[in-house]
Amino acid sequence: MLDIQRLSTTQPDFDQRLAALTDWDDGATHAVEAAVGEILKAVRQRGDAALLDYSERFDGWRVGHVTELEVGAARCGEALEGLPADDRQALETAAARIREYHLHQRQAGWERTEADGTRLGQQIRPIERVGIYVPGGKAAYPSSVLMNAIPARVAGVGEIVMVAPAPGGEIAPMVLAAAAVAGVDRVFLLGGAQAVAALAYGTDTVPAVDKIVGPGNAFVAEAKRRVFGHVGIDMVAGPSEILIICDGQTDPAWTAMDLFSQAEHDEDARAILVCPEARYLDEVQAAMERLLPDMSRSEIIRASLLRRGALICVRDLGEAARVANAIAPEHLELSVVEPERLAAAIHHAGAIFLGRYTPEALGDYCAGPSHVLPTSRTARFASPLGVMDFCKSTSMVYCTPSGAAELAPVASRLAHAEGLTAHARSAEYRLAAASGEGDGQD
Amino acid sequence: MLDIQRLSTTQPDFDQRLAALTDWDDGATHAVEAAVGEILKAVRQRGDAALLDYSERFDGWRVGHVTELEVGAARCGEALEGLPADDRQALETAAARIREYHLHQRQAGWERTEADGTRLGQQIRPIERVGIYVPGGKAAYPSSVLMNAIPARVAGVGEIVMVAPAPGGEIAPMVLAAAAVAGVDRVFLLGGAQAVAALAYGTDTVPAVDKIVGPGNAFVAEAKRRVFGHVGIDMVAGPSEILIICDGQTDPAWTAMDLFSQAEHDEDARAILVCPEARYLDEVQAAMERLLPDMSRSEIIRASLLRRGALICVRDLGEAARVANAIAPEHLELSVVEPERLAAAIHHAGAIFLGRYTPEALGDYCAGPSHVLPTSRTARFASPLGVMDFCKSTSMVYCTPSGAAELAPVASRLAHAEGLTAHARSAEYRLAAASGEGDGQD
Repeated sequence: MLDIQRLSTTQPDFDQRLAALTDWDDGATHAVEAAVGEILKAVRQRGDAALLDYSERFDGWRVGHVTELEVGAARCGEALEGLPADDRQALETAAARIREYHLHQRQAGWERTEADGTRLGQQIRPIERVGIYVPGGKAAYPSSVLMNAIPARVAGVGEIVMVAPAPGGEIAPMVLAAAAVAGVDRVFLLGGAQAVAALAYGTDTVPAVDKIVGPGNAFVAEAKRRVFGHVGIDMVAGPSEILIICDGQTDPAWTAMDLFSQAEHDEDARAILVCPEARYLDEVQAAMERLLPDMSRSEIIRASLLRRGALICVRDLGEAARVANAIAPEHLELSVVEPERLAAAIHHAGAIFLGRYTPEALGDYCAGPSHVLPTSRTARFASPLGVMDFCKSTSMVYCTPSGAAELAPVASRLAHAEGLTAHARSAEYRLAAASGEGDGQD
Repeated sequence: MLDIQRLSTTQPDFDQRLAALTDWDDGATHAVEAAVGEILKAVRQRGDAALLDYSERFDGWRVGHVTELEVGAARCGEALEGLPADDRQALETAAARIREYHLHQRQAGWERTEADGTRLGQQIRPIERVGIYVPGGKAAYPSSVLMNAIPARVAGVGEIVMVAPAPGGEIAPMVLAAAAVAGVDRVFLLGGAQAVAALAYGTDTVPAVDKIVGPGNAFVAEAKRRVFGHVGIDMVAGPSEILIICDGQTDPAWTAMDLFSQAEHDEDARAILVCPEARYLDEVQAAMERLLPDMSRSEIIRASLLRRGALICVRDLGEAARVANAIAPEHLELSVVEPERLAAAIHHAGAIFLGRYTPEALGDYCAGPSHVLPTSRTARFASPLGVMDFCKSTSMVYCTPSGAAELAPVASRLAHAEGLTAHARSAEYRLAAASGEGDGQD
């Protein structure tokens, strides 16, 4: 019996129950904070020597020099060559689709010229060097390599440095192959907070980067939070989530399996189904009970569903959309007859999968968008990882003398109001010069 | 005698000297961290009551209820009506130019359809509710109201909630007038970490927002860093900086005053001049000595220049560009004969002011771009505040049955490689259904 929590919008305390269900304290524990603080300090002070110590301690692997933790391009290429043809084909097809999607996100700078010749604009440039954290440990995620590195490559990033933990020195060949396919420049077998520290501060062997992206465990998340400002980061990821809105017409086994596909990530993953038909919730529950024993990660799925899963009965699809907006889910499946109509009512979601033939799993691997998405209600203000996360812009202002003469009185007035007389004078100098003529300033 | 540090790229230890000059530890002190932690907790737990206590303690102002800390639209409108005509005109001209510039930053979503009917795209929506922190205290900054609120308004943000400290209950009418001009929806006279906490968590009176932007002191910066994740933030701002590259042909008084305009902000502000002509550095120094006594904030300017200022002699303008890229300045003036040529060599800067007639002060108030810019070398990865900081996107995937049938084998293969069998099965279900026909799934 899989006793998943049932909620109904007719319950008088539904809002509190929903809030309790989706509450996630993203604060690190004191133990994690203290450990990460120490690791960051050690790597900053002792560089490579600290990395060797931590690799021994956390990955159970001692090498003589950090250069031995680097995997060269040749070895990544060999890993790709050595894959079964189907695996290689799958990686390359996924990579091509991800690349194609992200080409649409590129943006050009712009410039406009005013009547007096003054020019304003915005310049957009790729970030020079980026670090990508690829989680390892319990599972290897070649798809994460593609989803992080390809948008960076499309953006034109100069150098992509990937880190991935290699417990006991072992790394999945498919992860190295994905690095080759995605065009990663350098790979270091480093994980945890020490890998983040190495990328943020640089060591003799690991180059310092300008921004660090990619998901990781609580130590990685806390390390990223701490180095933010010194380098850029993408986001601090929470546990993965799916919300499925179904009209009750999709094969219950499909819906059950889509919920499983989220729940199998880890015990904190959240899988929630919303439907106006109580009968359908029963059918999906029955399908889950039937299908669960057959799953390879059934214990994780069970734990996750019991701790964080829910089946929510609503009055209609409009109410389902309101529930979705309150949850602001990372992944949202609209398994209904007119998904685009329902999508128009959704204000907050990382990614929307429309229709019964678009399970989240297709998006996780190969539909095109990055699977690095905002979690834990951050879709209210955050976006999927994309090309612009690997670019930055610069404002451009070029005033002609007459343009300066027009702006100077405005700037001067406001500067005086703020008590900033040097600002005012700096503007006034140009006004005086532009009003006089032939003052020798070109 | 204004004994500003002199550097030259011919010094053997120039790189270390430059690094020392620009080093900025953005880490908060333990005292600030502890105080902010306590304030966040108090506001989260006690809401309005905590706000009243902190306003009394930090702003020296006790009211009976937090509703009395709200300034209504009528009072903002009256503040605008009550301004001298020139001040009002300056505010409105600046606002119109800022609005016009930011209209160019708006972005539309997109969608493309593949041969099999599968559709991929990206939806872009404004953030629903945004909080804007406007610093007060020593000086009032109406320009900050415009520079934060107008990009949000252009983005289509639903509600803009502004907070500004009001020591003793006093707030500059020009700040309220700017709120009226910029279209701020609600104004609360709250400052410090408690204002950030109120916006992040909400109280009975202050609404919780989705993102908080705007500069503030060390307490505000630390509070923003701590609530990040719960809400979005723009950036953690460091002290303001200007780098001027001059070819030695600009009136030394202009350059001196432009350096002053940065230095007058506060004692941590950084003003640096780079020039290939040692003679010109002498002339600017002489101009500074002559002009300083006349400045209203001369003591702040002096302290800032002595602590953080520098005059740097380089071999040529190419070397000046390399120095600029190492500093990645918030503001960069190119006071040279062919500024666009030099701009092409600049990779990292928040804003570039080209030519002798474009002092930073024009950009601070009214040229168009926001004056909220990346500081402390973060221009390597961060951008000026803009319209897209007030928007977020959602990835859209809508597969047809035949599209799903094409993607499913790829997803399945990669999912199996990652050991995620529910992901694989979820994809395979759609493949089987699309291969068979008339299976009852529309």
